[in-house]
Amino acid sequence: MSQEATVTHQSAFRKLKRRPTMQYFTYSEPFPLESGAVLPGFTLAYETYGTLSPKGDNVVLVPHALTGDSHCASHFPGDEPGWWEGFVGPGLAIDTERYFVICSNVLGGCQGSTGPASIDPRTGKPYGMRFPMITVRDMVRAQRELLRFLGIERLHAVVGGSMGGMQTLEWAVAYPEMVGAIAPIATPGRSSPQSIAFNEVGRQAIMADPNWRGGDYYDGEGPDRGLAIARMVGMITYQSDESMWRKFGRELMHAGIDEIYSFSTQFQVESYLHYQGKKLVERFDANTYLYLTRALDLFDLGRGRGGLKQALSRIRVPTLVVGISSDILYPPYQQKEIVSILRECGVDARYEELDCPYGHDGFLIEATKMTEILKGFFQSIPR
Amino acid sequence: MSQEATVTHQSAFRKLKRRPTMQYFTYSEPFPLESGAVLPGFTLAYETYGTLSPKGDNVVLVPHALTGDSHCASHFPGDEPGWWEGFVGPGLAIDTERYFVICSNVLGGCQGSTGPASIDPRTGKPYGMRFPMITVRDMVRAQRELLRFLGIERLHAVVGGSMGGMQTLEWAVAYPEMVGAIAPIATPGRSSPQSIAFNEVGRQAIMADPNWRGGDYYDGEGPDRGLAIARMVGMITYQSDESMWRKFGRELMHAGIDEIYSFSTQFQVESYLHYQGKKLVERFDANTYLYLTRALDLFDLGRGRGGLKQALSRIRVPTLVVGISSDILYPPYQQKEIVSILRECGVDARYEELDCPYGHDGFLIEATKMTEILKGFFQSIPR
Repeated sequence: MSQEATVTHQSAFRKLKRRPTMQYFTYSEPFPLESGAVLPGFTLAYETYGTLSPKGDNVVLVPHALTGDSHCASHFPGDEPGWWEGFVGPGLAIDTERYFVICSNVLGGCQGSTGPASIDPRTGKPYGMRFPMITVRDMVRAQRELLRFLGIERLHAVVGGSMGGMQTLEWAVAYPEMVGAIAPIATPGRSSPQSIAFNEVGRQAIMADPNWRGGDYYDGEGPDRGLAIARMVGMITYQSDESMWRKFGRELMHAGIDEIYSFSTQFQVESYLHYQGKKLVERFDANTYLYLTRALDLFDLGRGRGGLKQALSRIRVPTLVVGISSDILYPPYQQKEIVSILRECGVDARYEELDCPYGHDGFLIEATKMTEILKGFFQSIPR
Repeated sequence: MSQEATVTHQSAFRKLKRRPTMQYFTYSEPFPLESGAVLPGFTLAYETYGTLSPKGDNVVLVPHALTGDSHCASHFPGDEPGWWEGFVGPGLAIDTERYFVICSNVLGGCQGSTGPASIDPRTGKPYGMRFPMITVRDMVRAQRELLRFLGIERLHAVVGGSMGGMQTLEWAVAYPEMVGAIAPIATPGRSSPQSIAFNEVGRQAIMADPNWRGGDYYDGEGPDRGLAIARMVGMITYQSDESMWRKFGRELMHAGIDEIYSFSTQFQVESYLHYQGKKLVERFDANTYLYLTRALDLFDLGRGRGGLKQALSRIRVPTLVVGISSDILYPPYQQKEIVSILRECGVDARYEELDCPYGHDGFLIEATKMTEILKGFFQSIPR
């Protein structure tokens, strides 16, 4: 049912990048969501790296963060770099000579998977804000259907950072029998009010853009300016005070002191944020940003499970939790809390702190340190 | 020339609050600014508390923060509370039984002083974005003219937090001979790139609002929505992760679990931000927000003075620098840097850290602790 049932992966998102390395899995049954709403089927775009072992015991799932996609790394020399380039590949932290790596665009996403920019097969029009609310649990349940389709019964490991880390935790809580080990990175057990607050600023910026039009913008320009502002505030939380001092300081784009007294003069940090905003607009859908940030807000492993401790107590597999010393979005105390609860529950939980100035984005940047940490972890997983 | 020359304090800002306790000082000469631009005169709104001593040696200047005004405290029972209510008054930290307290709305402000919402006397229309760029130095130079008008030659002390702290530092650097002591609170020696980044998000939100109309909105609705978003991001930086956990946690406005899967359901922290956004819109002008945040960005004591150390070395008076342990906007290392440089220069500089979870806003909230700190400081100032 993969390539045939194309109807559910039609997208109204014009900037969607269809790579030749992307594959599609289409689930054609009604799919009930955590909210109680039902999706009339869905598609997940995914990419794989490496070779599945005859026993099927070398699968590593790599869920992505907020604006990620199925392309976690290049597949061949000259291929476009992925969001975890330098981490996933032959001989790297997630070694594709040993492991069969699966990376799928999340349910609710805009890079080939079904989300608010997809065509609702019932109306022939984009879902827009009529798309049902998606949670991290829904993302993971959809991935579970992808694995079923691929004939994979067990994951050697799940490794992900940020929203990918939330999915990683959810995998071990929801399907403890399917998972061999997990490494959630720079992620909380439930989202903090401060992170919700930052997300809400971004959403308000998008929804205040007159081009948003209640989410029905796919035949027009779209809320590019609002999405860019949302990205700007996001980017601040992915970095740190220290990294911004190092990278930008108080330098101006044009250095003449006479020019500083004008709104058109920019500090380098402003120019950088504008650039990052523009870049995201070129590759991401605004409604999807609304839905996925809401999924972040709603992330609470303990919801309906008797609280965080009860939920984490379901995890029975070796767990490596990585925090980043300078992370202001999901600071280390949030990872330490997870580790401390897991240890109380008797789980073999290790904590490693990435000591770096880059903030939350450290998990995408610090390839050398992360490789060392992850390689040690992979060596310790019983196969 | 106070009450007569009303022409320069006409404001197009309809939400301007004219209190009976406000007085006006109008400077009717051309006033050259740090940028080289010249204002054709200006007005400052100000309020005073307590009584000037016959020797004129009991004056305390209290400059305000970004969205503050001349009303730092109520004047009589039943009067509207001020932004530093509980800090300024009889027997309080800044004791109006001992001191003659002056608080003026900054140049560039929208609460009675000349700013972008004022009528340009040359055109009869609001300045809007034709208002020249204002810096913290300009604010202080305008206050110096107010003091000249009032016949005050010396300030016993200057005490202010945040943007008020920047003015406090600038006073001691620009007019060391006029100042007896300073207490800058929760303020840097120069703005960090991260704080500039947050300001730029707010400005972009205002300027993206179609009602902003390039700043010429005074005959229409104005960019209320953009200003509210700017305030929302600001409010996050005035608080802390810990204070948001304490105040809001992950609580919803309406607690039913079935209702969480909707964009119309709000976490309490979101509702709070929306409320704060709305409240600011009722009392603050959007163009003024643009200008004053730019003044924050441009704040660098060392500019044109051979750097921060050279600038701080001009300070020769007892200095109390207060940092707030949980401040994410101007974190304590920024205050410690000031103290460390001052001590190198041989200045009697004390550092006190307000240990509280409230973040930057702690200086407006922690009345008891701040009173203890400030009272000790006032007692130590030679008179």
